[in-house]
Amino acid sequence: MITIHGMRASGNCYKLQLLMAHLGQPYHWVDVDSAHGETRTPQFLAKNPNGKVPLLELADGRVLPESNAILCYLAEGTSFLSADRWLRAQTLQWMFFEQYSHEPYVAVARFISGWLPPDHPRQLELPRLRERAHQALAVMERELAQRDFFVDGHYSVADMALYAYTHTAPAGGVELHDYPAIRGWIARIEAQPGYVAQQS
Amino acid sequence: MITIHGMRASGNCYKLQLLMAHLGQPYHWVDVDSAHGETRTPQFLAKNPNGKVPLLELADGRVLPESNAILCYLAEGTSFLSADRWLRAQTLQWMFFEQYSHEPYVAVARFISGWLPPDHPRQLELPRLRERAHQALAVMERELAQRDFFVDGHYSVADMALYAYTHTAPAGGVELHDYPAIRGWIARIEAQPGYVAQQS
Repeated sequence: MITIHGMRASGNCYKLQLLMAHLGQPYHWVDVDSAHGETRTPQFLAKNPNGKVPLLELADGRVLPESNAILCYLAEGTSFLSADRWLRAQTLQWMFFEQYSHEPYVAVARFISGWLPPDHPRQLELPRLRERAHQALAVMERELAQRDFFVDGHYSVADMALYAYTHTAPAGGVELHDYPAIRGWIARIEAQPGYVAQQS
Repeated sequence: MITIHGMRASGNCYKLQLLMAHLGQPYHWVDVDSAHGETRTPQFLAKNPNGKVPLLELADGRVLPESNAILCYLAEGTSFLSADRWLRAQTLQWMFFEQYSHEPYVAVARFISGWLPPDHPRQLELPRLRERAHQALAVMERELAQRDFFVDGHYSVADMALYAYTHTAPAGGVELHDYPAIRGWIARIEAQPGYVAQQS
């Protein structure tokens, strides 16, 4: 059985819980509290020198970091990752978009708003983070106005990657009122068989 | 024939020039000067709503953004992207590491140092960017002390993705003196058949 090292409050970790729930597969879960230094211990750094969760650990001890790489690995051979070369490229495209143009704004705005004290200096970052978050959401809205899910209209790991932080964007002061296509897509994902909400 | 829309000074665009040179395949190149707004024109945004280069355009008009998704697409079926499920996951892991933990520091330090005036307010970001860049380089150094290339010891698109900005890190004030394994890896890449240097 696989083990997932993760933190429940992290959207990057929730992605994997969501995929595993859809797949209906059991797994071990090991809580790692990165907010209290548990990703910086010698034991954890031996598994992932980059000091981040989530981390996948196979039964034979091999480990794989990076949430979106793990999603692709676990979804191989399932309906959540196409075998078609072009559709795989589209899937990856949205996953790289998520990690570069979306998560650093949507997730970080949520972190600063929800985890740091109101007088923390990083609160000053929020206006710029929210502006960039809305730029990412506008790109998503335009795409989702044309199709139900990001890749060929079928629910895939690209949707899971983008859903993880998008559905909690309002917690970072990034409202979704102006994005009807995104809100419809969120509702479609939450109606998928096996869907589980994020535990916090 | 494929078309690559890109800017020669961009490491993300250079990744694709490097892969195509190794593959020995011809392609059209269209210069897009993102520093002068050419990724924000209506014509370009119709192709890539995220307003970034590089952008791959196939002969039939289909387009694909995101440098690392393009690398994977173009390398499919070649020695630069393994067909093995675990090794593909490793490849993706390093490519997501590159876009999340490496490029936003190594590339942005180079941009601020080389393209913005000395009195620009973003110069204040440099100490933190350089610190994070060195954290990423330390992760790479540890890996490259154990193997010649990132994935199973074989030269792959993961190496090309990480090489693009690593070899120009000193231009951003991020020196490579303390990373002998990285310097050896850079030399190995530059000795590969078909290697081309970045044009600027």
